[in-house]
Amino acid sequence: VVDDYPSRQYQKPTYFNRKDPVIFSDDRQKAPLDEALLDHYEKNGFLFLDHLFSEDEIAKMQRYMQCLRDDEFIKQREESITEANSGDICSVFDVHKLNDFFQSVAEDPRLVRIAEYILGDQVYLHQPRLNYKPGFRGKEFYWHSDFETWHVEDGMPRMRALSMSITLTPNDHNNGPLLVIPGSHHTYVSCVGETPDNNYLSSLKKQEVGVPDDQIVQNLVESYGIEAAVGQPGRIILFDCNLLHGSNGNIIPAPRSNLFFVYNALSNRVGKPFGDTKVRPEYIAAREDIRPLKKVINT
Amino acid sequence: VVDDYPSRQYQKPTYFNRKDPVIFSDDRQKAPLDEALLDHYEKNGFLFLDHLFSEDEIAKMQRYMQCLRDDEFIKQREESITEANSGDICSVFDVHKLNDFFQSVAEDPRLVRIAEYILGDQVYLHQPRLNYKPGFRGKEFYWHSDFETWHVEDGMPRMRALSMSITLTPNDHNNGPLLVIPGSHHTYVSCVGETPDNNYLSSLKKQEVGVPDDQIVQNLVESYGIEAAVGQPGRIILFDCNLLHGSNGNIIPAPRSNLFFVYNALSNRVGKPFGDTKVRPEYIAAREDIRPLKKVINT
Repeated sequence: VVDDYPSRQYQKPTYFNRKDPVIFSDDRQKAPLDEALLDHYEKNGFLFLDHLFSEDEIAKMQRYMQCLRDDEFIKQREESITEANSGDICSVFDVHKLNDFFQSVAEDPRLVRIAEYILGDQVYLHQPRLNYKPGFRGKEFYWHSDFETWHVEDGMPRMRALSMSITLTPNDHNNGPLLVIPGSHHTYVSCVGETPDNNYLSSLKKQEVGVPDDQIVQNLVESYGIEAAVGQPGRIILFDCNLLHGSNGNIIPAPRSNLFFVYNALSNRVGKPFGDTKVRPEYIAAREDIRPLKKVINT
Repeated sequence: VVDDYPSRQYQKPTYFNRKDPVIFSDDRQKAPLDEALLDHYEKNGFLFLDHLFSEDEIAKMQRYMQCLRDDEFIKQREESITEANSGDICSVFDVHKLNDFFQSVAEDPRLVRIAEYILGDQVYLHQPRLNYKPGFRGKEFYWHSDFETWHVEDGMPRMRALSMSITLTPNDHNNGPLLVIPGSHHTYVSCVGETPDNNYLSSLKKQEVGVPDDQIVQNLVESYGIEAAVGQPGRIILFDCNLLHGSNGNIIPAPRSNLFFVYNALSNRVGKPFGDTKVRPEYIAAREDIRPLKKVINT
C-alpha cells in the first residue's frame, strides 16, 4: 500500500497539500445540509450544528454521561482513560458498546446521513467515546490532526473520516473549549519523531509524538486564525479528520464534556499501521469488529 | 502582632470577611479616577484602565521587555524564574533595579497617584516584575489571592496593597488571559497546608500551598461569576491584593506578557512572616530596601 501521508519518518517537519476531497458526494440535491453549510465545511473543515437533538434528548445524554462517570465498574475498565495527576476519568471509549442508549445516538439517522453524505459512502463507527474535561484542573490538549495519528498508528489510508462532538456541558471561553485552525484540514503536517510501542497508553493523556512543528502551526494560524468552539449543550461540532485542533486546560469549576463519535467510510477501513507499530486496541480503533451503519441516503 | 488573616493553620478550609477597606481615601475631590471607576473597583476589586500611556510609551516597554528576555545575563540571574518544562523565562523580578526605564515607569506619577489614592498612604514597590506567558506551551496558574501568600510568607499585615499589570501583548480569550472572580476580594479564603521552607523556589512556577479549596472557589464563582481580562497592549489591569485570580495555559502561538507592579502602603511594610517561615528573598518581597515613591497627591 502506498503511503500518501507519510509522518514520523523524516528528520525535519514538513507539510503538503491534502490529497483527498473534503466532501465526497457531488449530488447536492441529496444533501442533508444547506449549500452554505456544506461550503463552510469544505472551506473551513468544521461546522456547528444546533437544535439537531431536542432538549429532552440532550438531557438524557447528560444523565447517562453522569451515570457512566460515577460507575466504579466503568472506571476500572481499560476503555476508561484517567488523568495523569488526578486519576479522574477523562475519556471512556467504546461507549456505544457499554451503553445501549449511546449506541442508539451513534446510529441516529440524523447524524448518520450527514456522515454518509460528506464521506460519500456507507459509514461505521471508528471511535466512539465520552470526553470529560474536569473543572479546576482539566488538562490542555496540544494541537494535533486526528488523522495523522489514525494513519500512522492505526493504518487509516485516506482522509475520509469525520468527528461529531455533541457538547453536553456549556463550552465557554474560560473552560478550555475546543480550538480549531479553520482551513488547516487542507494541509497535512508531517510530524517528526518515532512512535514508541503502546504509545496510546500515554498519548491519550498527553501527546508526545505526532505533534506538529511550532513554526508550521504558527504559519497556519497566521494564514487562517483560530476559532473557539463555544456554545451551549446540544451543539454538535462536526469536523474533518485532518483539522488541526487542541484545547487549553480548565481551571474554572465548570467541566467541559462531550459525546464524541468518529465515523469512517466503509471503503476506508484501517489496515496495517503506516508507522509499522503494533495495532492499537479495538476500543481505540475499530478493526475486527466493523459494524456498518444502516444506510440513510438512497443511492 | 495579631494575625487578622490566619491561613495554612487549620485542618479544614474556611473563609471570612475582609477586615480592611478596599479604598482607603475618603476625599473623592482629590481622586485621580472617576467616581464610577472607583465604585467599580470597590465592588469588584479590579479595574481596566486604557490609554493611560501613549502608543510610543507602550512600544518602548515592549522593546525593553524583549531585550530583557533575550539577555542571557538576565536569564542566569536568580531574579529570573524559568518554566519547569521548557526552561523559558516566565518572570523576571526586580525589573526596576535591572533597568532604569522600567524604574521610571514604576515611578510614573500617573500610576503612583492611583496607588496613593486607593491605599490612602505614601506607597513603595513591594514586587515589580515582568511576566512572560510563552506561546504554544504556557502553563496555567491556579486560583489564588496574592495577599494570602504575602501575608503568610512575607508578613504583610493588612490588605493595603494593589497590583497593576500593564499588558504588553494582546490578551485574548485563547492565550490564557487573567481570569478574576469579581467581588472575591471581600472574602478571605483561609487555606489548608503547611508551607515548606524555600517554597518560593517552586511556588512561582506552580503553587501547591496557599491554594483555595475547590468548594469555596465554586461558591464564589456561583455568587460572582468569572471575568476574563482580555484587551489590547497598553491596557492596565488594576486589582486588589486579595482578589482571587488565575489563568489557564496557552497553546496558541501568541504569548501573553505584561509588566507587573505591586504597590504597598508605606504603613503596611512587611514584618515577620505570619506562617513563621524563613523570609523570602528581597527581590520577591521588598523588606530591607524600601524606597518610598515621591508623593503625587497633596495631603
